[in-house]
Amino acid sequence: MKHSLAEIAGIAGARLIGDEKIQISGIANIASAGAEDLTFVEDEKLLGDALRSDAGAVIAGEFAAHAAGKPLLIARNPRLAFARVGSFLHPARRHEPGVHSTAIIHHSVQLGKQVAIQPNVVLTEGVVVGDKTRIGPGTAIGADVVIGSNCNIAANVTIYPGTKMGDHVTVHAGAVLGADGFGYVRDPGTGRYEKFPQIGTLVIEDDVEIGANTTIDRGALGPTVIGRGTKLDNMVHIGHNVQVGENVVIAAQTGISGSCVIEKNAVIAGQVGIADHVRIEEGAILGAQCGVPSKKVIRGKGVVFWGTPARPIREYLKELAVLAKLAKKG
Amino acid sequence: MKHSLAEIAGIAGARLIGDEKIQISGIANIASAGAEDLTFVEDEKLLGDALRSDAGAVIAGEFAAHAAGKPLLIARNPRLAFARVGSFLHPARRHEPGVHSTAIIHHSVQLGKQVAIQPNVVLTEGVVVGDKTRIGPGTAIGADVVIGSNCNIAANVTIYPGTKMGDHVTVHAGAVLGADGFGYVRDPGTGRYEKFPQIGTLVIEDDVEIGANTTIDRGALGPTVIGRGTKLDNMVHIGHNVQVGENVVIAAQTGISGSCVIEKNAVIAGQVGIADHVRIEEGAILGAQCGVPSKKVIRGKGVVFWGTPARPIREYLKELAVLAKLAKKG
Amino acid sequence: MKHSLAEIAGIAGARLIGDEKIQISGIANIASAGAEDLTFVEDEKLLGDALRSDAGAVIAGEFAAHAAGKPLLIARNPRLAFARVGSFLHPARRHEPGVHSTAIIHHSVQLGKQVAIQPNVVLTEGVVVGDKTRIGPGTAIGADVVIGSNCNIAANVTIYPGTKMGDHVTVHAGAVLGADGFGYVRDPGTGRYEKFPQIGTLVIEDDVEIGANTTIDRGALGPTVIGRGTKLDNMVHIGHNVQVGENVVIAAQTGISGSCVIEKNAVIAGQVGIADHVRIEEGAILGAQCGVPSKKVIRGKGVVFWGTPARPIREYLKELAVLAKLAKKG
Repeated sequence: MKHSLAEIAGIAGARLIGDEKIQISGIANIASAGAEDLTFVEDEKLLGDALRSDAGAVIAGEFAAHAAGKPLLIARNPRLAFARVGSFLHPARRHEPGVHSTAIIHHSVQLGKQVAIQPNVVLTEGVVVGDKTRIGPGTAIGADVVIGSNCNIAANVTIYPGTKMGDHVTVHAGAVLGADGFGYVRDPGTGRYEKFPQIGTLVIEDDVEIGANTTIDRGALGPTVIGRGTKLDNMVHIGHNVQVGENVVIAAQTGISGSCVIEKNAVIAGQVGIADHVRIEEGAILGAQCGVPSKKVIRGKGVVFWGTPARPIREYLKELAVLAKLAKKG
Repeated sequence: MKHSLAEIAGIAGARLIGDEKIQISGIANIASAGAEDLTFVEDEKLLGDALRSDAGAVIAGEFAAHAAGKPLLIARNPRLAFARVGSFLHPARRHEPGVHSTAIIHHSVQLGKQVAIQPNVVLTEGVVVGDKTRIGPGTAIGADVVIGSNCNIAANVTIYPGTKMGDHVTVHAGAVLGADGFGYVRDPGTGRYEKFPQIGTLVIEDDVEIGANTTIDRGALGPTVIGRGTKLDNMVHIGHNVQVGENVVIAAQTGISGSCVIEKNAVIAGQVGIADHVRIEEGAILGAQCGVPSKKVIRGKGVVFWGTPARPIREYLKELAVLAKLAKKG
Repeated sequence: MKHSLAEIAGIAGARLIGDEKIQISGIANIASAGAEDLTFVEDEKLLGDALRSDAGAVIAGEFAAHAAGKPLLIARNPRLAFARVGSFLHPARRHEPGVHSTAIIHHSVQLGKQVAIQPNVVLTEGVVVGDKTRIGPGTAIGADVVIGSNCNIAANVTIYPGTKMGDHVTVHAGAVLGADGFGYVRDPGTGRYEKFPQIGTLVIEDDVEIGANTTIDRGALGPTVIGRGTKLDNMVHIGHNVQVGENVVIAAQTGISGSCVIEKNAVIAGQVGIADHVRIEEGAILGAQCGVPSKKVIRGKGVVFWGTPARPIREYLKELAVLAKLAKKG
């Protein structure tokens, strides 16, 4: 479906320079954009490429205001403006509402309006599903799980009993939510490990996105909590009783051990390891593969930490430089 | 259901001080315990908090024997005693025995007594399932797999043909057991990788627990073995022909390459990487994120290793300290 | 089924020394081989063990040409020869062609000849499946996915809409192909993360093997591509818009961030972390757990890199040695 550039400028919250009647039907990167596509450029160095491309129009920053050759949308944050146009032109695939005949739904289950319950879904006793939520094929949901409205739970997800989930939550395929935490006590007599009770819960707040094959354990006694707006990439591991604040970003394959607190606005790169009882304070940034030992506190809004044990990146880079110098001499 | 503190003391193997008629119905941590809850304290510093809490009674160590204000259960190992009371008061969710009508079960399958075969389970030719074992929704079990009694296999698990599993094994959702190992041989002529045969087996002994989305590969020629009582956290990877001994603990996201031997009582933290043909000897301890290069032997009961390549933690910490000092000077 | 050693020599492309009428029915390692088994030895030091074993015959290199005691197959590459005999004697389990009655198949789906569509498979609108391809139990395949011929898709796999897959592709259980990449833009006003469009595709070329619980994301705008003959181990993560060339090997738990290019013949060990926009040039080798920072180029056919940030292993080992020496002094 086509939209005038004037309409697109409104969606983008951008200033239009050039022909407002140009028709736009999609978004694309510079290399593949066609005449009906909008592309974007954040970095002034790429502006020439964008202007020479086949794109119908370009979203760019203020730096492009005097450029010629194509209709322009000037935005304060070109990436954000582009993302919004993308969401408008390419909305998420709509799942046909309805309950598939192969879904297995306990008579006590409460389904909201316009839910899409897809093939082979299993909804156990006491499950509640909010309006317009989709549950994908093969997903198994345990007793008394509550899922909010407008959620998108993909295929082959498993949600353990008692998990609570807010609205607008996206869960990608293969994720496992609310499994037992990893807690044992060794019997010094027999040498055997006995299970420490894992009877807590898992609470996932609104607007969370959870990547494919990610696992989040229930609490041992209290809850594990994932705060509003937090985004988890694929294969992230969150241990029991972890408290993740709002608007936290955690990249792929990072693991967070039991009872950690990750405060709001923290940014955690991929393959980071955080031992138990750590506190990552508001807005701290952990570089890829870094490791935080047990019970440490990481503090500093906007400060980047790196290495194992994690330290301010300036220190770490200096250590690397000193070491490289010594090795060259040696 | 309520139990007298006298009965609870018996379960805990603890000495009761105070009112033995107090009624206890659950366990909880100090912060959330109510009047019918038992809580516990291992660390003398937290004893005051426990005594001031709303808990009905407190399990603690000998250090608390003269404390006042609450009924006490004095145990040599308060955490172990608490875990046992927890198991008693909050037993694992019982799965209703029965075979769900949507389960697809080959006529040659042998089912024990009181099994719970849940919706959409697939049991292929020759599968054997022991008494009181539960197989969760969507779990697919390949030909000739043998599963013991009292096992709990969660939802969306996949078990490849020929895997053998003992009794009292717990497998969390999304785990994949017995897939092909990662073995190829390059044809120098074509540059293509050809598959090295992956025709071995996987043997999982009694009392093993396997975390969510963990993968354990079958052997290439012989078996992969997970020893009795061993506990694997989420997203652990065990390669082909690995031999894991008894009572080994392996935390989340650790990977063990082909043909390693992990002897009994080893403790392996999270995100550890162990290259092929490594031997971790009895009782060694590997710190989080450490890396053990190919063919190394790690030796030392109770010795902690850290870093990549893994070395005794004392050495590693000394190196870190020296480096930090040099960087400050530099 | 038995075959004469003469026939086996032909399969192996090896020179036969000894009794060509010996009957061989299987392959085995030295320790477990029986009278009808073929075993192999690459390392001259193990030749004695092989000759003293119960094996019916031994594949070995030229070094064994004058050994006595057993029929021998002399091959330039004993491991490759052995693998080929293994594939011949133990062909992959054949899946009975047919469409199981519980499979849910949209009327628009095109199925090739002799496909095996197993229980509880879901094939959504527009899916195409090539000849002789197997789709395992519980696997869910989204709209417009195209799968080639002779593919083996195991159980509980999820393939997102639009993914294209060539011929002879193997996908192990629990893998998730084509999920959304991890891309957000922060609104500086609200502090909330908004989703960057993830509307690209995933293309998997011929002869690729994908390990259990591995995740490969679709592109954000363009495609993610996995090149012909590439092999991915378990729990590998491939981010959006990554381009992996031909005959690349990537071991377990490695993660590759968005927009990286991995050129052909690269070898990447386990738990490696590669940040976004990195280029790994042809034939480079990344050691286990190493880390490559954003936008770096790793160059050197056959050169091994190690450490974080990844550097040529010679440099890294020298740094380690210098540091250990300083720590001993200090």
